[in-house]
Amino acid sequence: MAARELQTQAAAGPVVLARSGLHACLGEPVLGAINFLNEVIDRYPEAISFAPGAPAPSLLETVDVAADLETYIAHLGRVEGLTEAQVRRRLYQYGPSRGIINGLLAEALQRDQGIEVAPGGIVVTVGFQEGMLLTLRALFAGPGDVLAMVQPCFVGAVGAARVLGIDTLPVDEGSEGVDLDQLRAVCARARAEGRRIRAVYVAPDYANPSGTLLPLALRVGLLEVAAQEDFLLLEDATYGFTAPDERALPSLKALDQEGRVIHFGTLAKIAMPGLRVGFVVADQRVAGGTVLADDLTAIKSMTTVNTSPVCQAIVGGMLLSHGVSLQALGDAKGRYYGERLNSLLSALQRHVDTGKDGLPAWNRPRGGFFVRVRVPVVVDAALLEVSARDHGVLWTPMSSFYLDGGGRHELRLSCSYLTDAQIDEGVSRLGRFLRDPRICGKRP
Amino acid sequence: MAARELQTQAAAGPVVLARSGLHACLGEPVLGAINFLNEVIDRYPEAISFAPGAPAPSLLETVDVAADLETYIAHLGRVEGLTEAQVRRRLYQYGPSRGIINGLLAEALQRDQGIEVAPGGIVVTVGFQEGMLLTLRALFAGPGDVLAMVQPCFVGAVGAARVLGIDTLPVDEGSEGVDLDQLRAVCARARAEGRRIRAVYVAPDYANPSGTLLPLALRVGLLEVAAQEDFLLLEDATYGFTAPDERALPSLKALDQEGRVIHFGTLAKIAMPGLRVGFVVADQRVAGGTVLADDLTAIKSMTTVNTSPVCQAIVGGMLLSHGVSLQALGDAKGRYYGERLNSLLSALQRHVDTGKDGLPAWNRPRGGFFVRVRVPVVVDAALLEVSARDHGVLWTPMSSFYLDGGGRHELRLSCSYLTDAQIDEGVSRLGRFLRDPRICGKRP
Repeated sequence: MAARELQTQAAAGPVVLARSGLHACLGEPVLGAINFLNEVIDRYPEAISFAPGAPAPSLLETVDVAADLETYIAHLGRVEGLTEAQVRRRLYQYGPSRGIINGLLAEALQRDQGIEVAPGGIVVTVGFQEGMLLTLRALFAGPGDVLAMVQPCFVGAVGAARVLGIDTLPVDEGSEGVDLDQLRAVCARARAEGRRIRAVYVAPDYANPSGTLLPLALRVGLLEVAAQEDFLLLEDATYGFTAPDERALPSLKALDQEGRVIHFGTLAKIAMPGLRVGFVVADQRVAGGTVLADDLTAIKSMTTVNTSPVCQAIVGGMLLSHGVSLQALGDAKGRYYGERLNSLLSALQRHVDTGKDGLPAWNRPRGGFFVRVRVPVVVDAALLEVSARDHGVLWTPMSSFYLDGGGRHELRLSCSYLTDAQIDEGVSRLGRFLRDPRICGKRP
Repeated sequence: MAARELQTQAAAGPVVLARSGLHACLGEPVLGAINFLNEVIDRYPEAISFAPGAPAPSLLETVDVAADLETYIAHLGRVEGLTEAQVRRRLYQYGPSRGIINGLLAEALQRDQGIEVAPGGIVVTVGFQEGMLLTLRALFAGPGDVLAMVQPCFVGAVGAARVLGIDTLPVDEGSEGVDLDQLRAVCARARAEGRRIRAVYVAPDYANPSGTLLPLALRVGLLEVAAQEDFLLLEDATYGFTAPDERALPSLKALDQEGRVIHFGTLAKIAMPGLRVGFVVADQRVAGGTVLADDLTAIKSMTTVNTSPVCQAIVGGMLLSHGVSLQALGDAKGRYYGERLNSLLSALQRHVDTGKDGLPAWNRPRGGFFVRVRVPVVVDAALLEVSARDHGVLWTPMSSFYLDGGGRHELRLSCSYLTDAQIDEGVSRLGRFLRDPRICGKRP
């Protein structure tokens, strides 16, 4: 107990808070993962960084916040018949915790994916991240409730679980997108321990960091297992917009007949991150005649009250300028990233030599921002330091994305933030780094 | 266990989530309190409502978001030397979880209150609400940590604790602002139970809902008890800007010599709610050489990632237009609300008859948005219905603001949202309501 107390150094001196007295989540590596990377980036400003999954700066050049706002305000006047004073209240006052652009989002989901959801079944959130936090808080009632996560897995999803102290179990993606046999085994094991898999987190479309597209048969299979094992699916749709038209598959939510899928969208990539707008489709029925979105809304009223209506209005303007379609809003950006991904893959082909052991090796995703490279050595902070200091190139260790210490021989490259010239030069540096005797010397 | 399972109605039908399988916080009345009031307001649109503590619509008439943004962008170019492309990255990309206007806020806190804090000791949050959530998550490590709250108490502060499952104990405000003897007794009782009061939530300046200004001697006394009992103070400074100049007292943070005060500010009232910008001053030292703000930042990276830099930039522009002073930004608004408060108090004098029993009675705060009225009957949802339906006037039951069932004979009136004419007519209706035989008939 003593260690958990505040430690007052001296009668008049400042208190020093004991680290052991702070919440356990602060000791979780995932909470420091982003900070760690940013520190490395700061220390090596000349390095070319394949680390950030942030949108390309060039795509922000045409952003015109004032014009988008005007578009939405004109819509409020023309379609909803609001006076100027009413518009000001809608945008500048507190607003409904559920959001103000839910109707536009519902229209877009119907148009883009055939998903039929009432505006009240959607909650507008401060990005994907808050949506995940609210959903986990609502669904996980006690210590017996476990979140299964298809790994490798976006750190934000893991971090939200850590902040709430929710237990997680990994299910490997395997070669296809998700190992359903392993998932069934995880459910059985949890049940044997008196626990239950309450939900499974999965990003079916060119996931961060794996780049995998979950095939249609496995989407259907995952829904079947969800029904058999009685869990919900938390579908992260962040990278769906990067799917080339001919390869786009229906989302889990679009395939869902039973109401088992909670669908997370974000405007960070198709509009811009600086607005902090995302949404959750949570139209599951709750006993008593409400929907799950009502519960997420109640929790949101105590986490952020509401998502800035100014930011929602800017998103609303962007949607209105793109035929009220998320897909149309993201279309040109999806093509842009497709080109960068091709540049990255062809640069790898040009600059990286594969040895007799078949390493380095990399996957060849058809969408998303990310490529994984398997190397013959352990990928850790020390190796990143060597890469940055001696070769001027940065990337992300894949182990950050595993719940169980996996991914130790892999690194992640992101193409989203760089130009073709930077990609070429960066991969050329990466090639030299991978030929560094400290790395290729380890080859068998 | 069966009741916690999902209940699949039929093989092909939609699942229905059992309420008992959702997190316990969703059963807490405080999470539904705002929703309940909004529903009543919706059902009686013609009623005059003293319920909302939202800013006056007339104060939003001069808001010019595009101009504020321009002001901040010009500052970034002129003072920080950013190019246009860099400005776009700063505003439209992901940004640091800690915030981008921390330097301006630190400057304002120094100028307004003589608080010396490094920009890194501040975290910019999605309003007060997220600041409270992050701070509670960081500080409350286990079930033995208890939050004491000076009651009556803002529901948002209680709600954040409920969402995180943190135990709370009330300490009565009493007639002076806080009952220090009771606070000491609460600490002793917790200790005897093997628990500890980790922090005390208090709003020293014209608190919502009590309207009390904590006198200087009690501010000093509270800091002394904090040192003796080894807890932290969570200071909610929301209504400080409404203090008439001659009555303004130093904040707890300004008086704090030991680093025991975590100070919460919000721009909702002095700028506007629609931006969702607040801040936490958390420059407490943590063993190992960091500050508490670093930990709040790490948690924030997993709750909302960062506060919209667009919204922060708008706030930044407003601050720059007001000499980088929160006080100057809120000054005219503070005077405006002072006038409304006077209108409310004089209308009560005109329209409400006090009986021989001294009831109805009300307090006479000199700042803030709120007046409490004590009545001779139990104030509950049924009484609010009578007031709304039969007399066309709405208010908030004070029991919502107590942790222990207190306040059952009180209601809260807010002056912030109404014009003088509405206040006069509303209080006139309130007077008729209070003369209703169903209420005054209960008088002894």
